Amino acid sequence: MARIAIPIGEDFEDSEFQEPYDRLLKAGHSVVVIGLEPGATVRGKKGTATATIEQTAADLDPADFDALVIPGGYSPDHLRTDEDVVDFVRRFFESGKPVAAICHGPQLLIEADVVEGRELTSWPSIRTDLQNAGATWIDEEVVEDDNLITSRSPEDLDPFCEAILDRLPLKIGKPHRETIG
Amino acid sequence: MARIAIPIGEDFEDSEFQEPYDRLLKAGHSVVVIGLEPGATVRGKKGTATATIEQTAADLDPADFDALVIPGGYSPDHLRTDEDVVDFVRRFFESGKPVAAICHGPQLLIEADVVEGRELTSWPSIRTDLQNAGATWIDEEVVEDDNLITSRSPEDLDPFCEAILDRLPLKIGKPHRETIG
Repeated sequence: MARIAIPIGEDFEDSEFQEPYDRLLKAGHSVVVIGLEPGATVRGKKGTATATIEQTAADLDPADFDALVIPGGYSPDHLRTDEDVVDFVRRFFESGKPVAAICHGPQLLIEADVVEGRELTSWPSIRTDLQNAGATWIDEEVVEDDNLITSRSPEDLDPFCEAILDRLPLKIGKPHRETIG
Repeated sequence: MARIAIPIGEDFEDSEFQEPYDRLLKAGHSVVVIGLEPGATVRGKKGTATATIEQTAADLDPADFDALVIPGGYSPDHLRTDEDVVDFVRRFFESGKPVAAICHGPQLLIEADVVEGRELTSWPSIRTDLQNAGATWIDEEVVEDDNLITSRSPEDLDPFCEAILDRLPLKIGKPHRETIG
């Protein structure tokens, strides 16, 4: 099983957090919810989901995780001004391990300066920002470019989650730590 | 007196609409609220203000307005995917008349492709997007570059509104049409 980091902030898109979170746990993986204030509860913009922040990015080492999943909504707009979150995302991306971002999630990838030369998709409102950052924007439900997996909206969640899970084979015999720190 | 267009969408920053709107009217100017659905009421993200959409951008001619004021919050993220709004903003900007944008408002200017080579400010989360679009980002309460007036957040509203009003001398004797269309 794998350990996945999910960075989340206020006004996240409810299902874009909840569905990957639930499906990763159901598949036997562990998830650490990263945010700005440990112990804080952040709310989805639709009011149907909440998330409790477990750790700040400053307290974590990207090397301890197997994948990074970035939900959308307005959460990435809040997180991208936090240097520790952005540094974590940059270092994780550069490790070459799977990074999945949906909807506005790629805003964090712009801030981490890792999209230049990449093929990806997103919610259409940030297409121009991604193109200005050097990415090639494609209108498909899931775009995979090397370690990067991206989708457009909650309607793409099923194939988005499938693409993430496909990168996370259950590692028989590897010890599973439930929490860090 | 002048006629000012204010484009607005769901989850706008309440005070960034309400304060310029109120102060422009109080100074004797007229305001037309532009949005995606005429007659619709859109809500501020803090729940303290609402705005009723009077016209769509498709129904208006930039030549009929003297200034454009773009509030922030998540409103610009919604409006930037509407081609008519973006086209209106681009044509208005190119007219050389005053364009004022605060907080996330400059996202609409990115989409209209008018910020290259300009000095401006914004909410810090979109600084990188503005720089990638070719702008020079400055951390000041009001940045004025030719026809462009920008501010960072609700805390800058007083000098932001002053800067707008300074560009709008009351034109004695000019007929004042209350509504268009």
